[in-house]
Amino acid sequence: MGAGSRCGARRSRPGAHAARVPRPEAPISPTIRERAERARGAARRLARLDAGAKDAALHALARHLRASAEPIAEANRRDLEAGQAAGLSVAVLDRLQMGPAVVEATAAAVEVVARLPDPVGSQREGRRLANGLLVARERVPLGVIAMIYEARPNVTIDAAALCLKAGNAVLLRGGKEASQTNSVLGEVLAASLGEVGLPVFAAQVVPAGDRESTRELLGLTGLVDLAIPRGGEGLVRFVAEHARVPVVQHYHGVCHLYLDAGCDVEMARALVLNGKVQRPGVCNALECLLVHEDAAREALASIAASLAEHGVEIRGCPRTRELVPAAVAATGADWGREFLDLVLAVRVVPSLEAAIEHIERHGSHHTEAICTRDVERAERFLREVDASCVLVNASTRFNDGGQLGLGAEIGISTSKLHAYGPMGLESLTCERFVVRGSGQVRR
Amino acid sequence: MGAGSRCGARRSRPGAHAARVPRPEAPISPTIRERAERARGAARRLARLDAGAKDAALHALARHLRASAEPIAEANRRDLEAGQAAGLSVAVLDRLQMGPAVVEATAAAVEVVARLPDPVGSQREGRRLANGLLVARERVPLGVIAMIYEARPNVTIDAAALCLKAGNAVLLRGGKEASQTNSVLGEVLAASLGEVGLPVFAAQVVPAGDRESTRELLGLTGLVDLAIPRGGEGLVRFVAEHARVPVVQHYHGVCHLYLDAGCDVEMARALVLNGKVQRPGVCNALECLLVHEDAAREALASIAASLAEHGVEIRGCPRTRELVPAAVAATGADWGREFLDLVLAVRVVPSLEAAIEHIERHGSHHTEAICTRDVERAERFLREVDASCVLVNASTRFNDGGQLGLGAEIGISTSKLHAYGPMGLESLTCERFVVRGSGQVRR
Repeated sequence: MGAGSRCGARRSRPGAHAARVPRPEAPISPTIRERAERARGAARRLARLDAGAKDAALHALARHLRASAEPIAEANRRDLEAGQAAGLSVAVLDRLQMGPAVVEATAAAVEVVARLPDPVGSQREGRRLANGLLVARERVPLGVIAMIYEARPNVTIDAAALCLKAGNAVLLRGGKEASQTNSVLGEVLAASLGEVGLPVFAAQVVPAGDRESTRELLGLTGLVDLAIPRGGEGLVRFVAEHARVPVVQHYHGVCHLYLDAGCDVEMARALVLNGKVQRPGVCNALECLLVHEDAAREALASIAASLAEHGVEIRGCPRTRELVPAAVAATGADWGREFLDLVLAVRVVPSLEAAIEHIERHGSHHTEAICTRDVERAERFLREVDASCVLVNASTRFNDGGQLGLGAEIGISTSKLHAYGPMGLESLTCERFVVRGSGQVRR
Repeated sequence: MGAGSRCGARRSRPGAHAARVPRPEAPISPTIRERAERARGAARRLARLDAGAKDAALHALARHLRASAEPIAEANRRDLEAGQAAGLSVAVLDRLQMGPAVVEATAAAVEVVARLPDPVGSQREGRRLANGLLVARERVPLGVIAMIYEARPNVTIDAAALCLKAGNAVLLRGGKEASQTNSVLGEVLAASLGEVGLPVFAAQVVPAGDRESTRELLGLTGLVDLAIPRGGEGLVRFVAEHARVPVVQHYHGVCHLYLDAGCDVEMARALVLNGKVQRPGVCNALECLLVHEDAAREALASIAASLAEHGVEIRGCPRTRELVPAAVAATGADWGREFLDLVLAVRVVPSLEAAIEHIERHGSHHTEAICTRDVERAERFLREVDASCVLVNASTRFNDGGQLGLGAEIGISTSKLHAYGPMGLESLTCERFVVRGSGQVRR
């Protein structure tokens, strides 16, 4: 970690707290590999820390965030101005916002993570074998995690807090559009870690460079233990395609709700509205409603009226359009489509089997739900539908780490390796075997 | 799964049981992609099966193996002859053997797997949330697994049994040197599955082609959920480098044992002998002994004498050679080396820290052990050494799925994602979230 002057990004804009805390000594513009090597060194120290030390860092982080709300907001204004000038969409600019309210919410989220139980060191399946060996599986940190993400700068802090709590070092590679905000957040992270005596390289903001530098980061086998892409499908595909390090990916959420014959129509209406209207731009929003033909007439009339009140456009199959004249004709491309908008695809199906078949073909293994009164069909749906979260008589919006009791999440995996569904602290660790003996040898 | 004549491999040598059981109808020489698509279809059916149906298939497999011992041995003789003609090493030819004794052992191992508890459907962390939702994490199969392996043809059956028990379809891509044996084993698998009415494409032997065909298999994202390479470092590296599908990899085992100051010398001697001599060619064999300088004089004399009796060559550091004159001088390349032979590297170190430092630099995250009487140093070693299995006062040879209580293993992962250490049935599944409600919506 040799001597040298402070790196360019830090030198160019000293934060409010710059004078108060020690800052890392590092050569100008470390390479991606140098950053990863420092992260690996930091990870070794983090892995040995007790929860108390890590929680102290997180509480320091929350304090430093609040104290730096002004410089953060100022850097964010510069990012927003540059984004406007570059013609970014209103939606992207909205996600880019990090004013005082977002800073406060982010600091509060860090405190929530600090209060979660530490997964590291927890043991399961401890048992004494016939030969007297005590064997247990023990949770340990993964090591170095690379977060690759876009737009929302609060992800920088959310991800850092979760990674640190689980004993991992993290390389935070955000998008160019948030680079000034992220740079200040990197200073805040370093200041917080430094204040409590933890390695400042444990959470590093990697400057948003070109795709080549991301590719380099994704090729650092042996230095990076896991890459987590979070963002649009283009970003996730790029990471999946170029990574030589392990990746847990979250593509998109094409969530279905199936209304069974004989279902509670009022419940169905509430589930559809909640799934589609509460927050249409997120991955667990409802994108397609499947309705059993025996339920269609009664259910669709009431549901369509409520959706219309909320300005939702229905893209329906022919039978749907008979029952809901205002519905637009769905095209083939509307099945399996993530609208992320006030648009809902609706299809009338002849059976539960047809609904499962539709989901198998068009679903994204994210979230799938059934509304039914029939216990056998509920169980069949749960058993035969393959998704990270399957629900009976509940809104798809519940597929979320916070809602499902994980405390917080770093993403939702739609691939099955390592994690499937919302990834909480436990997903940022792995289990090893610990064996205690008294001289046993193998026969 | 359209009609067509039987595939070439099967047609060319009808097995003894060929007339008794239905055989899959398939076009001649399906492509790798076609095989994977059929596997995916089979996986959907397997995922819904109860343990009873899967166990029946495994018992049928054990029966068919025993009934086919003769055709298996005959095909194996042809592989061995071709291998000898091609100049394969004695070690490889030895691993290639599948005579009646190996067939019987393999059939017995299948029966062991049949008796293991089914991981699919098991739930944990089931709880009722404040809003009344019942949430649980439930184990489900991964889907389609591609095994890429070399030499030992019994892996074909071992891997198939584990994958099927966990509800997965499997593509078995063995080495060219075992292709005739594996082809007959593929017939045995199809016959067993067919007999009990399970999809015959659930376990397919993929003909050993060139590396290009392996690369194609490893590129089938969306069809193959996991690739498991098992074999030499060259094979594992090839898979890691070319896979677009997730890989759990097992490189090599460079296992260390550290003899602490004040350790029980007799225990130390037993652990060293067991680690090095019992089966030197396996990945959990001991490759390097680290000895605290205060223990070196007493321990090394006794250990070296015992090792000499077993014909073990010692490659020692200068201090080791002072104490053991027969020791050869170790070169830099001997640290971190997997000898897989009756050779042991020995280094005298000044402290526990130096031992941990050596392991950090030269270990392979496989298996690391300490022999000590001191509880504090035992705990420090366990906490600071990063390996899939860490042991106190026990032989490194215990890092094995069977020995650690997993019942059986499909490999030992030295990477941390998804699995770290021996992979049993549980590693061939993942957890999803299952939510049962009564109309809850998100606020």
